[in-house]
Amino acid sequence: MASRMCIAVDAMGGDRAPDEVVAGALRSCGEAGHDVLLVGRPDAIERCMAGQSFPADRVRVLPAEEVVGMGDPPASALKRRNTSLAVAVQAVRDGEAQAVVSAGNSGAFMAYATLRLDTVEGVERPAIAIVLPTPTGPHVLLDAGANAACRPEHLVQFAHMGAVYARDVLGVANPRVGLLSIGEEATKGSGLTKATHKLLSELGDSLNFVGNVEGDTTFEDVADVIVCDGFTGNVFLKTAEGMAGAIMHGLRAAFTSSLQAKLGALLVRKALDAFRQTFDYATYGGALLLGVNGICIVSHGRSDARAIRAAIAVAKRSVEARVIEHIAASCLGN
Amino acid sequence: MASRMCIAVDAMGGDRAPDEVVAGALRSCGEAGHDVLLVGRPDAIERCMAGQSFPADRVRVLPAEEVVGMGDPPASALKRRNTSLAVAVQAVRDGEAQAVVSAGNSGAFMAYATLRLDTVEGVERPAIAIVLPTPTGPHVLLDAGANAACRPEHLVQFAHMGAVYARDVLGVANPRVGLLSIGEEATKGSGLTKATHKLLSELGDSLNFVGNVEGDTTFEDVADVIVCDGFTGNVFLKTAEGMAGAIMHGLRAAFTSSLQAKLGALLVRKALDAFRQTFDYATYGGALLLGVNGICIVSHGRSDARAIRAAIAVAKRSVEARVIEHIAASCLGN
Repeated sequence: MASRMCIAVDAMGGDRAPDEVVAGALRSCGEAGHDVLLVGRPDAIERCMAGQSFPADRVRVLPAEEVVGMGDPPASALKRRNTSLAVAVQAVRDGEAQAVVSAGNSGAFMAYATLRLDTVEGVERPAIAIVLPTPTGPHVLLDAGANAACRPEHLVQFAHMGAVYARDVLGVANPRVGLLSIGEEATKGSGLTKATHKLLSELGDSLNFVGNVEGDTTFEDVADVIVCDGFTGNVFLKTAEGMAGAIMHGLRAAFTSSLQAKLGALLVRKALDAFRQTFDYATYGGALLLGVNGICIVSHGRSDARAIRAAIAVAKRSVEARVIEHIAASCLGN
Repeated sequence: MASRMCIAVDAMGGDRAPDEVVAGALRSCGEAGHDVLLVGRPDAIERCMAGQSFPADRVRVLPAEEVVGMGDPPASALKRRNTSLAVAVQAVRDGEAQAVVSAGNSGAFMAYATLRLDTVEGVERPAIAIVLPTPTGPHVLLDAGANAACRPEHLVQFAHMGAVYARDVLGVANPRVGLLSIGEEATKGSGLTKATHKLLSELGDSLNFVGNVEGDTTFEDVADVIVCDGFTGNVFLKTAEGMAGAIMHGLRAAFTSSLQAKLGALLVRKALDAFRQTFDYATYGGALLLGVNGICIVSHGRSDARAIRAAIAVAKRSVEARVIEHIAASCLGN
C-alpha cells in the first residue's frame, strides 16, 4: 500500500461513546502503523482528546453532526446521511479509509454498509461473523444475525467467507468448516441444513467441510468455522451469552454466600482473571460484517477503550491480509 | 384414582442402565404413593435388585428381552416390539401404568410414544418440553427437538401445552409465555416467528402471551414458558450445555492453576455445591414428551439413580395434576 492505512472510527456509536471510543482509538494509533479518522461531533471528540497523548499527525476528525440512536430502526437511520455512522462508512467508500469500526446501532451499520459499499462480487448476502471463545481457541460463527431467512447457496457463501476469515485473521492454515444442525448425520436437521449439507459436500477440495456440528460440539475442537442462517446464529449467540450470564450470577452468589466462601474467592481471584478474559467479548474485537466491499467491524454496544482497540486491531489485520480480495476469489470460484 | 398409580421404567435405557436406573426406581417407590414396573431383561433387573431394600409389593418386573441401542435409528427401533422401551410404552397404552420413564434412545422413545399412544385430541405434533435452570427459577422451553420443521399452529399448540406444564408441574399460577426470536419487536424474526406472534397475540385471555424473548432474556425473569420450533429449541439447548461445559472447563483450569488457587477452591467448594445443583440436569428430572396420550418422561442419557428418582417424581406429579386432560382442554378450546 502506497499511503498509510487509515481506519474510520464512529466516535459517537456505543453505550460508552464518545469517551471510551475516542480513548481506544487514540491508544491504538499510538501503537503504530495506521491513522485513525474520528467521525462525529467535533466539539465532543475534541473534549475527549484533550489531555491525552497521541501522535497528532495520525489522527484526524471528520465532522458529522447527527447520531444514530441505539434503538433507531435501520430504515429511519438510512434516511439520514449526516450521522457519524453514515459518514464513517462513506469515508471507506470514498477511499479515505480502508476500514470502519463502530460500536453503535448494528442494524443501521449493516444497512449503511450494504447500501453504500455494495457486496463483494460473488456474494449475495453479507453476514455477521463472530469469534467464539472456546477452551481450545477461537472459532468463527456466521451468520450471527444479518439474514433471518437464508437459502442454501447463501450458507455456502458464508462457508467460504468464514474460511477466509479463519485463515486471514485467526491464522488457521486449513480451516475446518462445520454446519450447525441438530444431529451429526447428513439426514438430520431442517430442510435448509439438509440442502446445504449436500451443496457443501459437493465442493471437494475447495473447502474443508467436516459435516454437521451441534450447539455443544461447536465449543469443542471439531470445526474452526461454524455456518448457519442468521436466525439460528443469533439465537446461538444470545443463548451462549445468557447461559454465561446465568452461571456468572450463580458464581457470584456462591462466592459471597459465607465468610469461608468469601475468603476462598479472594484466593482464586487472580486465577479467575485469566478465565474471565477468555470469555470476555472485549478480547476479540467484535464482529466482522463479511461480504461487503470494505472492512466493517461491528463492536459490542458496551465496548470500552480496550474493546475498541481490539476492534481496530482486527480491522487492520483484515486489511493487511486482503480479506476482501480473498472472499471475492473464493466466492466467485465456486 | 381407585387403584394405586403405577409408573413404568425402562430398566435397560441409558448409559448407566440397568444398575442406576433400577436403583433410582426402587428408592423412589420406597418413598411412597406409587408402584413401579421395571421393564427389561429379568435376570439383569433381578441382579440389580438383589440386596436392595424396597417395598416388595410395590415393584413388579415386566420382561422384555431386547434393548434399543443409544445410537439406533428410530425407524429400525420401531420394527422391534419386544424392546424394553416398546414394552414400557405399551404398558401405558394397556392401562397397566399411568406414565413411562426412560433414559434410553430419545428418538426411539418419541417414535414409540407417538405411534402407540397417539396424540391428545387437539394436538397435531407432540413436543419435547425441557426445564431450564435460571437464577430466578425454572423455565419451560419447548419444542427442544421433536419437530425440526413446524407451522405457526404447531407453535400455538406448544404454547398451550407449555402453559399447562408450568401451571401443573412447576406450580406457576398464570404462566407468561414468550416466543423465542431474534428481537423483541413483533416485526423481528423469521417468517415462522412473525406468523406465530400474530396468532398468539390474537388469543386474548386464554393465554398470557408476553411477546418475543431472545436467547439471553430466556434466562431472565421475563417468561415462564418459551416456545420455538424443534430445530431452534435443540440448538438452544445444546448451545446452553456447550457454553456451560466450556465455562466449567475454564473454572476447573483456573482452580488448579496455582497453589493459592487450589487453596481458595477448597474454601469455596461447599458454596459451589449448591451452585452446581442449580445447573445440574439431575435436579429437574428430564424432559416431558408433551401432547401424546400418556405421560412420557425422557431422562438424560447420563442419568444416575438421583436423576431417575427426579424423573419419576415429575411423572407422578404430572399424572396427579391431570396434565393430559388439561392439555386436551386448552388445545381443543382454541
